[in-house]
This record gives sequence, C-alpha cells and structure tokens, in this order.
Amino acid sequence: MNEFTAQDIEAVYRVIAARRDMRHFLCEPLDEPLLARLLAAAHLAPSVGFMQPWRFIRIRDAALRGAIHALVESERQATARALGEREDEFMRLKVEGVRECGELLVAALMDGRERFVFGRRTMPEMDLASVACAIQNLWLASRAEGIGMGWVSLFDPERLRTLLRMPEGSRPVAVLCLGRVPGFYPRPMLEEQHWAQRCELKDLVMTDYWSDAPAPPSGLPRAAPAPAATPAP
Amino acid sequence: MNEFTAQDIEAVYRVIAARRDMRHFLCEPLDEPLLARLLAAAHLAPSVGFMQPWRFIRIRDAALRGAIHALVESERQATARALGEREDEFMRLKVEGVRECGELLVAALMDGRERFVFGRRTMPEMDLASVACAIQNLWLASRAEGIGMGWVSLFDPERLRTLLRMPEGSRPVAVLCLGRVPGFYPRPMLEEQHWAQRCELKDLVMTDYWSDAPAPPSGLPRAAPAPAATPAP
Repeated sequence: MNEFTAQDIEAVYRVIAARRDMRHFLCEPLDEPLLARLLAAAHLAPSVGFMQPWRFIRIRDAALRGAIHALVESERQATARALGEREDEFMRLKVEGVRECGELLVAALMDGRERFVFGRRTMPEMDLASVACAIQNLWLASRAEGIGMGWVSLFDPERLRTLLRMPEGSRPVAVLCLGRVPGFYPRPMLEEQHWAQRCELKDLVMTDYWSDAPAPPSGLPRAAPAPAATPAP
Repeated sequence: MNEFTAQDIEAVYRVIAARRDMRHFLCEPLDEPLLARLLAAAHLAPSVGFMQPWRFIRIRDAALRGAIHALVESERQATARALGEREDEFMRLKVEGVRECGELLVAALMDGRERFVFGRRTMPEMDLASVACAIQNLWLASRAEGIGMGWVSLFDPERLRTLLRMPEGSRPVAVLCLGRVPGFYPRPMLEEQHWAQRCELKDLVMTDYWSDAPAPPSGLPRAAPAPAATPAP
C-alpha cells in the first residue's frame, strides 16, 4: 500500500534527527547540480494558497558576502547587549559561518504578497510559514547529501533588504550558510554548549484545551531579561 | 563518508516530492505509537536560539472538533467574499478535512516568547518559522508513513485561542488534519483544480542582488483584489 518501505521511512526519520544548525564549515564550494537539487527540494514545499512566496538570492560576490557578515556581526553585538547577564556567554558562542561556508544564500519573502488572501485573510504570516517549510526541505535534503546548513537570523532585515536592492514589500528572512563541514554536531550546538536544554515532548502536547500548568520550557534562558517595552512583573 | 546511502538520499527527495496538503481523509483513527513518532519528529525541528516554541493540542472531544470546524467554515465564507471575482471558484474547492480526518491537532506558538531574544531581537517572527519547520517535519514523517496531512489556516486566531482556553501571548498557527487517505493527489490539489500554477524555479533564484524583472509568479490569482487598506494603483 505505502510506496515507502520500512527502510525509506527509517531514512526519513534519521535525516530529521541528524539535521543540525551548523556554524562550522570547510571552505569548499558546492557543485552546481547539487545546489540545483537542494533548491528544487525547497521549491517543493507547501505554501498557503499555493502562492510560493519564497525567493532565493545566491551571494557570489565576495565584497557582498563581507557586507552581509558585517550586518550579522553588528546584530550579534546588539543581541549580546540585549541578553544582559548572559552577554559574555553569548559572545563565546559561534553563531554563524557566513565567511567560511561554501555557498551563501539569502531566503526572502517576495513583494506583492497582499494580493494573496487564500489562507491569509486573518493569518497574513502564513507566507513566512511557507518559506520556513521550504528552508526545512532544503535543510533536510542538504543533510541527506552530507551538506551542512545554518540559518542565521542575526541581522536587521531592512538593512539587508537595502543592501541586496530588494523591493519594498519584500523581506529577507534567512541568511543560509551551506557547505561541507568538518563533522555534524552530535547534538544541537546550543545544547552542547549548555545554552539551553531540549524540552520534554510530553510537556508540549496537551489534550483539547491548553493545560493550566505546562512545565516551563527547560530551554528558558537562565537570565531572562524582559524587553524594555514589557517590564517583567 | 556520508552515512546516508544513495537509497536513503533518494527516499528523502521522494518524500519531499510526494508530500501533499490533503483535504480528503478516511474516518479512521491513528494508533498512538504512530502519532507519538510523528510528534517526536516535529520536536526535532530547528528553533531560533533553541527556544522550541511549538505546542500541540490534540483535539479529542467531538464537540470541540465541531466548534473548530464552525470557525473554519466561517472564515472560509469570509475569504470567499474577499476573493471577489474568484468567490464561486473558491467555494467549489475542498479546503479542509477537519470533520473527517483521523486525528486533529492545533499547533501553536507558546506564550512568554518575548523573553527570547537570541536570533529574534530584530526578527521576532522567527518563532513562527521554527514552528513551521516542526510542522514540515511532521508532514514529511507522515507522508513517509503513508499518512496524509493538511494545514488549515482558515480561522480567526483570536477566536480559536479563546475556544481552546489558550493564554494571552500564545497563538494558534495551524489546524492540522492528519489521517489515512483514499489516495495522495498526484499534484498539489490547487494546481490540479487550476487555482494556481507551479512557478518555475529559475524565476525564483537570483544572484547577488534582487533582479529587476523577475517573472511574475504564475500562481498569481487571476482576479487579485487589493485589500481595502491598500487600494490598487
């Protein structure tokens, strides 16, 4: 009945489990047919009302890559300051591999999205959800091919949009680092570095109604500063 | 070197290509170990700063399922009206299988997300991207197991949040219909029904800078009404 064999199913679960957000890369380019396969996998993602809102910009120019790295570095420092007590710990983490990775992509939402209302009249953010599904496809296909990927969201989207001469209404949502890696982390790097812990699945699944007292996520930042606009109680 | 064999890689690409947004289900429950495997696959998704913002509510109560269906039906009618010229065409589409599917889940963003700033200081919507990646994992694992899934976003999120007694700050992002199906659509249903067409990948990939004249997406609604707030030029 099911055209996927037990071995196929096992491979799918295994790639889901082995996928990692990578920040360490070997400086080797990817070959074009491989990149084409990965992008084709992204393009097979679901999208709300079949709107296919994803756009990908390949960064080939070295100076442009450097400018993107500078944007990321600027936001890394701003994030560190916003983290307060965990600033030093955050600054010791490697959070991106923009300069080293073999292929740098920017994934973006297209402009003109307001024309699409199917599944978005009350939930306009479903276009971002669609792009995220495309990126997850790309991530899983990469992992199966032995290629690492990291999703960097440490940037000011307006500054990146301007840098890449993107039209108003479009929005970059990910700087994607792809490439060969010295090895895949056995566990998520932020777990290995004790930044946060994996929650227990049973604490995240409820029945019929929201549970009054779900266990607090174990991945909660230890020093959780409230943003200025919403002071902590 | 790569622990994924050519056969494994092929299975991963095949499941990505065969995944469909399903709206036709057989009325048969899923067994618990299967559902547990699917949710575990979702929980292995990447998340910004490892925050794991996803929450899942299993809808077991028949009256509650009926109430969710009523919310979806109400939004379906509102969407049809918003589509203007394509209203009748939209109303002929089957857009959800809420009442028939074997298992109904609501996927949501947890409350208290403002505490997490890693990767979200300038990009707060990355929590939704993480939940979308979890849902895509669930989708692909389901497909490999021969189980269909549909992501319904036709609802008012505040009304659904209230119905499920979810705390302020949390947000439902998907009504997920899962279950055995009479068969998987050979192509996306909205493509088969001529609602929209698949874009060509080459029109979605650019180099270094946004291209001035990317081909307009072929999936553009034929009669694209601008929302009242942003009148068409």
